[in-house]
Amino acid sequence: MEFEESGIGEECGVFGCVAAGEWPTQLEVAQVLTLGLVALQHRGQESAGIVTSDGASTPTYTSHKGMGLVSSAFPPEALLKLRYGNLGICHTRYSTTGFSELQNCQPFVVDTLHGKIAVAHNGELVNSRALRKKVMRHGVGLSTGSDSELITQLLALTPPMEELDTPDWVARIKNLMTETPTSYSLLVMFKDVIYAVRDPYGNRPLSIGRVVPISKLHKEDTEGWVVSSESCSFQSIGAKYYREVLPGEIVQISKHGVQSLSVVPRPEGDLPAFCIFEYVYFARPDSIFEGQMVYTVRQRCGRQLAIEAPTDVDVVSTVPESATPAALGYAQQSGLPYMEVLCKNRYVGRTFIQPNTRLRQLGVAKKFGVLTDNFAGKRVVLIDDSIVRGNTISPIIKLLREAGATEVHIRVASPPIKFPCYMGINIPTKEELIANKPQFKDIAGYIGADSVKYLTVEGLVSAVQEGIASVQEKEDNMSSNKVGHCTACLTGKYPVELECRWMVIIGALF
Amino acid sequence: MEFEESGIGEECGVFGCVAAGEWPTQLEVAQVLTLGLVALQHRGQESAGIVTSDGASTPTYTSHKGMGLVSSAFPPEALLKLRYGNLGICHTRYSTTGFSELQNCQPFVVDTLHGKIAVAHNGELVNSRALRKKVMRHGVGLSTGSDSELITQLLALTPPMEELDTPDWVARIKNLMTETPTSYSLLVMFKDVIYAVRDPYGNRPLSIGRVVPISKLHKEDTEGWVVSSESCSFQSIGAKYYREVLPGEIVQISKHGVQSLSVVPRPEGDLPAFCIFEYVYFARPDSIFEGQMVYTVRQRCGRQLAIEAPTDVDVVSTVPESATPAALGYAQQSGLPYMEVLCKNRYVGRTFIQPNTRLRQLGVAKKFGVLTDNFAGKRVVLIDDSIVRGNTISPIIKLLREAGATEVHIRVASPPIKFPCYMGINIPTKEELIANKPQFKDIAGYIGADSVKYLTVEGLVSAVQEGIASVQEKEDNMSSNKVGHCTACLTGKYPVELECRWMVIIGALF
Amino acid sequence: MEFEESGIGEECGVFGCVAAGEWPTQLEVAQVLTLGLVALQHRGQESAGIVTSDGASTPTYTSHKGMGLVSSAFPPEALLKLRYGNLGICHTRYSTTGFSELQNCQPFVVDTLHGKIAVAHNGELVNSRALRKKVMRHGVGLSTGSDSELITQLLALTPPMEELDTPDWVARIKNLMTETPTSYSLLVMFKDVIYAVRDPYGNRPLSIGRVVPISKLHKEDTEGWVVSSESCSFQSIGAKYYREVLPGEIVQISKHGVQSLSVVPRPEGDLPAFCIFEYVYFARPDSIFEGQMVYTVRQRCGRQLAIEAPTDVDVVSTVPESATPAALGYAQQSGLPYMEVLCKNRYVGRTFIQPNTRLRQLGVAKKFGVLTDNFAGKRVVLIDDSIVRGNTISPIIKLLREAGATEVHIRVASPPIKFPCYMGINIPTKEELIANKPQFKDIAGYIGADSVKYLTVEGLVSAVQEGIASVQEKEDNMSSNKVGHCTACLTGKYPVELECRWMVIIGALF
Amino acid sequence: MEFEESGIGEECGVFGCVAAGEWPTQLEVAQVLTLGLVALQHRGQESAGIVTSDGASTPTYTSHKGMGLVSSAFPPEALLKLRYGNLGICHTRYSTTGFSELQNCQPFVVDTLHGKIAVAHNGELVNSRALRKKVMRHGVGLSTGSDSELITQLLALTPPMEELDTPDWVARIKNLMTETPTSYSLLVMFKDVIYAVRDPYGNRPLSIGRVVPISKLHKEDTEGWVVSSESCSFQSIGAKYYREVLPGEIVQISKHGVQSLSVVPRPEGDLPAFCIFEYVYFARPDSIFEGQMVYTVRQRCGRQLAIEAPTDVDVVSTVPESATPAALGYAQQSGLPYMEVLCKNRYVGRTFIQPNTRLRQLGVAKKFGVLTDNFAGKRVVLIDDSIVRGNTISPIIKLLREAGATEVHIRVASPPIKFPCYMGINIPTKEELIANKPQFKDIAGYIGADSVKYLTVEGLVSAVQEGIASVQEKEDNMSSNKVGHCTACLTGKYPVELECRWMVIIGALF
Repeated sequence: MEFEESGIGEECGVFGCVAAGEWPTQLEVAQVLTLGLVALQHRGQESAGIVTSDGASTPTYTSHKGMGLVSSAFPPEALLKLRYGNLGICHTRYSTTGFSELQNCQPFVVDTLHGKIAVAHNGELVNSRALRKKVMRHGVGLSTGSDSELITQLLALTPPMEELDTPDWVARIKNLMTETPTSYSLLVMFKDVIYAVRDPYGNRPLSIGRVVPISKLHKEDTEGWVVSSESCSFQSIGAKYYREVLPGEIVQISKHGVQSLSVVPRPEGDLPAFCIFEYVYFARPDSIFEGQMVYTVRQRCGRQLAIEAPTDVDVVSTVPESATPAALGYAQQSGLPYMEVLCKNRYVGRTFIQPNTRLRQLGVAKKFGVLTDNFAGKRVVLIDDSIVRGNTISPIIKLLREAGATEVHIRVASPPIKFPCYMGINIPTKEELIANKPQFKDIAGYIGADSVKYLTVEGLVSAVQEGIASVQEKEDNMSSNKVGHCTACLTGKYPVELECRWMVIIGALF
Repeated sequence: MEFEESGIGEECGVFGCVAAGEWPTQLEVAQVLTLGLVALQHRGQESAGIVTSDGASTPTYTSHKGMGLVSSAFPPEALLKLRYGNLGICHTRYSTTGFSELQNCQPFVVDTLHGKIAVAHNGELVNSRALRKKVMRHGVGLSTGSDSELITQLLALTPPMEELDTPDWVARIKNLMTETPTSYSLLVMFKDVIYAVRDPYGNRPLSIGRVVPISKLHKEDTEGWVVSSESCSFQSIGAKYYREVLPGEIVQISKHGVQSLSVVPRPEGDLPAFCIFEYVYFARPDSIFEGQMVYTVRQRCGRQLAIEAPTDVDVVSTVPESATPAALGYAQQSGLPYMEVLCKNRYVGRTFIQPNTRLRQLGVAKKFGVLTDNFAGKRVVLIDDSIVRGNTISPIIKLLREAGATEVHIRVASPPIKFPCYMGINIPTKEELIANKPQFKDIAGYIGADSVKYLTVEGLVSAVQEGIASVQEKEDNMSSNKVGHCTACLTGKYPVELECRWMVIIGALF
Repeated sequence: MEFEESGIGEECGVFGCVAAGEWPTQLEVAQVLTLGLVALQHRGQESAGIVTSDGASTPTYTSHKGMGLVSSAFPPEALLKLRYGNLGICHTRYSTTGFSELQNCQPFVVDTLHGKIAVAHNGELVNSRALRKKVMRHGVGLSTGSDSELITQLLALTPPMEELDTPDWVARIKNLMTETPTSYSLLVMFKDVIYAVRDPYGNRPLSIGRVVPISKLHKEDTEGWVVSSESCSFQSIGAKYYREVLPGEIVQISKHGVQSLSVVPRPEGDLPAFCIFEYVYFARPDSIFEGQMVYTVRQRCGRQLAIEAPTDVDVVSTVPESATPAALGYAQQSGLPYMEVLCKNRYVGRTFIQPNTRLRQLGVAKKFGVLTDNFAGKRVVLIDDSIVRGNTISPIIKLLREAGATEVHIRVASPPIKFPCYMGINIPTKEELIANKPQFKDIAGYIGADSVKYLTVEGLVSAVQEGIASVQEKEDNMSSNKVGHCTACLTGKYPVELECRWMVIIGALF
Repeated sequence: MEFEESGIGEECGVFGCVAAGEWPTQLEVAQVLTLGLVALQHRGQESAGIVTSDGASTPTYTSHKGMGLVSSAFPPEALLKLRYGNLGICHTRYSTTGFSELQNCQPFVVDTLHGKIAVAHNGELVNSRALRKKVMRHGVGLSTGSDSELITQLLALTPPMEELDTPDWVARIKNLMTETPTSYSLLVMFKDVIYAVRDPYGNRPLSIGRVVPISKLHKEDTEGWVVSSESCSFQSIGAKYYREVLPGEIVQISKHGVQSLSVVPRPEGDLPAFCIFEYVYFARPDSIFEGQMVYTVRQRCGRQLAIEAPTDVDVVSTVPESATPAALGYAQQSGLPYMEVLCKNRYVGRTFIQPNTRLRQLGVAKKFGVLTDNFAGKRVVLIDDSIVRGNTISPIIKLLREAGATEVHIRVASPPIKFPCYMGINIPTKEELIANKPQFKDIAGYIGADSVKYLTVEGLVSAVQEGIASVQEKEDNMSSNKVGHCTACLTGKYPVELECRWMVIIGALF
């Protein structure tokens, strides 16, 4: 809901599960997948799909896809249909293209010479245009505009298929990774195996969890393995965080366990480029990336913001709910009292109010209630996590003033967004971004605040990386991995040259 | 959602609107009603209904009812159908009886000798069985089991109808009020007038708001009047809080304004009995009752709890979201740091997980994420607003311990619930209430906490009434009204004798 | 579908079933009711409802109502819910008022001092306005505009209710029958009994059937009793035609069998007035009224038409499907060959073609295919059962001419409809009826036919009554019943004075 | 519905339309397509899809697909969405595989190097397994099991794609036709052109129609062109039959008119193999194949049957509705009177009656009413068009006997079905076919008839071909085309060797 107004949104979440040990086991894979999707629902509310496999040597794949939230896309019949799966992958989706049809839902399943493969994808290929042309020149018709279908056909296409007993999907995945540098976190299911893949830049997240028994007796056993865009999905299905898939890594997950097969390197000198906005905005606060909890990073951003941009006010507050950790951090650092000034009506959202009416002018008022007694006659600093277009914060400020706030200052726990993302995030066009408008010079005046200040890029990066440093000292297995984040939407510095550079490389291959 | 598990829920919300001045006006009454319902959605999610009138001397009534949330019950066609209304009333419902059918949706509309009346009702008649028998003995067949139909037929029935030009509905309403003491907040629409009625004990809330123009120029004008179970619904439609309907009062709302017609008195010596759980649990925190904001009362309950039941811990936290004001109050009073330890997945709720599965045992885990870093290795006191059955708090404690909390203490910002409510609140049977179980003696052991303490009844009452006292000193118009609250579910002291006493009285009338 | 265009339609069908012998029996009453409704679907496609009773001394009633065809209104869950019924009544409805809401669906159930009664009604009370006023003056609010609710409240209202052990519903039904002469076929269910009632004029049909075992061994046993608007519904549930309910008769149907309780007489000199259009148009051809099969009557009408209005043509044909028996009768009488010239696309009907388009002008063409080879170069006489507005037959004639018919003559197997019906049939207003338009003088020219002739009223009446005469000679139990039919829509002679006469009578009672 | 019970069904219908002259024209292409689908609904009720193109040089394709009947699959929004199309193709589908998902709906659209193509297909490729392997060996993943996707990828695949300005789709279609001999009637849309293609054996039908203006003035003008599985769809959209697409022919339809591009020949000596069951059972009676009306062929079958298998009875009748032309033909030839003995309840079909109940045993009784008076005490011969499993005719015979028929003879207007179809018709397995069961020796005893006789294969073929002969004498353009029909399901003689022969040929190509 709030994404709708801010105009910035994650595109997708992926999730997979394999029951460990001899099949069939007690683990209800289809239900684990469904709960996994629910826990990733904040990454996409438009449609959802599940594909399960019974894992037999000639496997039966079962799939169900539906529009809308998981709860409506997966009625009981759907779960019944999927119940014989011993492993499966799933996907929740938010379309950037506005082309919202069931046909575009993932996972994408195709039949190949060696049998069916299923693919779920989070991200956006930076050179998809060139790749589409490549497969079409090969004579393949593409039935959708989705990168997921493109990836699937690329996996099937090269090298030429031979009628082998054991097709080398890993080689095909590696081949794919040489053709497109970023951005993707992929799950590829074939028969009884899920390959979990992260692009060499690690732009999108992907974590592995271990399903532990509910009963206390056997806590050390493993009932299955899950792999997910975010680790916040582990707890709800009784899994423990195990580790992240590394940038460029191909991990094989089967009933026998988790095995790292390969790590495809980046070009010499390139750093990883994990999306910094996963920390700032998209991820659920209880997810863990690079060894640190998202909530803690946000709190650190708030502290950093208090250092960089202090205010002389009576009350620190939040735009609920996503900015709350930053607001608490700001309050802790500044020593100012934290108070709630807004209360959210969680039922608002989809009422069918006609456009052009008096009531539309009330805008955000129908979404927030004002807790007058907490701030009337006081000076307030309101912490927000980001300002995209400025059309949400402005009416909130007006609400607070009308209810008696004597001053309203805005502090934003991230730098201004100035550039589009081509790697899986839906951001408004450059023209729509408030930071690119002439009014941005007097942003306080424009949105009606007494003052507006943003966190600096350096401040954000240090708040994010400070925690990784301290983690790395503790954990061996990550120390070899250099630290780096994609800040393209803030700085315009994209981790790879877009389309053109790779087109040259690919063009050379044909 | 959270109500489902706690097993305690409000039954209904009512809302009405009249456009002021000459009709038709610019005010989109049907849309105001819809937004009003959305803002009262927390009081009932089962079904909703709207009835509008064009207010003509031979009025046209238009109605629409639907199952589920307002957003699904009122598709655009429904709003289109209702658009010629100049006034209207509406209702959102949660059924206690489990008999959930469209036919039982309110408002209830019937044709009488003088034309149609529409009735919306929040509450539960304590003597409904006797009243049903009365109207049926008169030869009236009742098509539903709802109090709303019963009230409507009672209004039509006595005194005998005569073919008058101006039927005396106010006399009929007064007559009804002498036959049933509580509990009801009623809206009765006839032609161009809404009568807003609160029972003599004021058990259910009812507030009036003034719709002000959006444009700043004419802020002093009145575009219309609204009446609502809770004032939290005013802001979202651009209305300002005007005043409460008093216990026993009949207020007439028309295009000409608001007029108090009568106040039906309580029996000598009886105090008002406004439901104290509206403060504790049901109402939205930004609503105003008896001159004070609900959020502030809850915060005061938290402060009082800190005085009555201090703890020696490192962190104060909340079971989000309803207990947050009390938790902040507790933290402020005790001087302990406030931290978030749980994060809620707002998409959880209606996934179709089969019973008897491993995943059901995980219970509340799928609803809450744990913010480990904020409490691992620390002693936590968790503030909850109430414990009804104990089946929600228990798994939360387990979650926190597993994630590293060294101690988990529970403090409840209200006294134990021990008795059923017969006045409009859905409470589990006496046997289901944790406070009536043998295990309650060792409640801490039962739910797995290090200690559990409740607010005292005296503490709660003083936290609630303290604010009213200070308000009354300021406001004249309420000073004449004595202060009193219904604490029946906590103490077993019901404001009136149930069914029997009034049956005698009614029996005498026939 | 065809009704939509002709603008003439039956309003309702009623059906009831009681399992015979000790309960519970093997008879699936809910499923019998559903199939009964399906077999009466041609009498109403707008909504359907079923109410069952377990027949206990404190009975449990279960009901389900839904919009649309029986198949969509009764999903499997609905049947499951109803499955404990040992008896039940049901109703299928087509609304004349355009006010189509679930709330108006029958059967209507109300709770009275003696328990619940359920009422299903086919017909239209000629004095409903006066009766509504009567019950409202008594202080009863009416929640719908339906005669069914009115009837139910009238049954409850007078004489005044007393708390008796055995309420005298039969006396109340008789009382109702003295207050309203026609038109109604009623089913009233109370606890373990269904009262089947036909108005004194017998305007609407009502037949009783005996459910026989499927197995051949026990064919003589009785598994239950059914009562239905039309006997065509008996075969599909394995029942045999037993007898009609007589005009004015109250029949009690229980697990013990069928018992005639009373016959309320007509005013001296009045003949029965069974709707003659049930024979001509509404009823299914395999239904039996007054001892004769509807198909046979229609065939006789065709024969009579051939005598009254012969033609010199090459081919006799039909507008499928309802006019086929008449067409075959015409062919037999005239000795001319019968051929099909039109074939119907049964899937046409509800496609959403925008108004004002070229395709709408094609009109009926999308509904009928032309069997060119059967009539190209030939002279055709087309038999239709009635012409209401003339807008269906006209494009058919055009189709036939374009496909090569050299002459197209129209013969109508009923007289012109000139007057509205106030007794349960939906007929267009007087102005819309083709027979009342100036163009009717040259009807052939108007619709583009070479000639048009209608059956005479005398011809129709004799074709209908001829069969009854021959039946009566055979059957004793009907001989005492005089023969008479309502031809009001053809002649303007209504069987009773409308509204006014009865208002006087009723007025006198109060 | 009736197909469900007989277990024999057509798989698909295709339809296309191009507006003639300069675009945009007055012709509502999307609505023409919808009505075309409705008229082909008897060929598939499971799902439907439409794709339109605006025909621009960089065309916009718009598509909509839905499950169920056209009326539910195409709500008004869908038509609105499609309204800018100047040409389009559509498809209605009945799946043989039981794998019924939206994803399998046709038309199938893919993006190729030259832009999008859309394909709609009626038929079944006899060598689909080999072809699937071929495209998959090429590295193409197939996302569905449908021949339509396979055809589309084959069109894109060979010869290798080059980036040409004008891709040679006709060459690709010809290439496809050399790889698969039958069975297909195809519509391929590319930009502003529809290619209408019929396999070299002409196994499935395909006809072209000319859209004429509604107004009489311009009747000679052409508003557009349509192409359809059956000509019965022409009349409902105001089109006139123009001609059939010939076996092996590729016809180009554009705004400039209709042009035959090529005729791919059959192997030397092979005759055409148009499915004879289109005449017997599937097609609508008003369709025209090979110059003759289907109704007339059926009537001729009835006449032939009367010659081959006369009976000594009192009445000839039909199992409505599909056998009626044959029954009338039988009556005409034999001189016996034709009567209706059954009347069909068109609302029966989809009520949710639980299995294993008494009512299921009644079987077909709920579908047919018995017109007792027409045959009680008489000997009846009942004409049916085919007997597949024998489970429909048997209870009908029982019904007639119980209602008083003294003898019931069955005559079937087609030979016994003994072999499966692999060319687009859904026929039960060999074991399920009554003609392959031991009981077939005493089929009369098995189904309870006094006698059963079938039309001979020779009789059927002569009844079908007799009309073509007489047509060919008149029409020049067909005389060059030899006559031949596929009778594989009756004789086991398939027009081509299945799978194997063509696999060899294809194998040789790679």
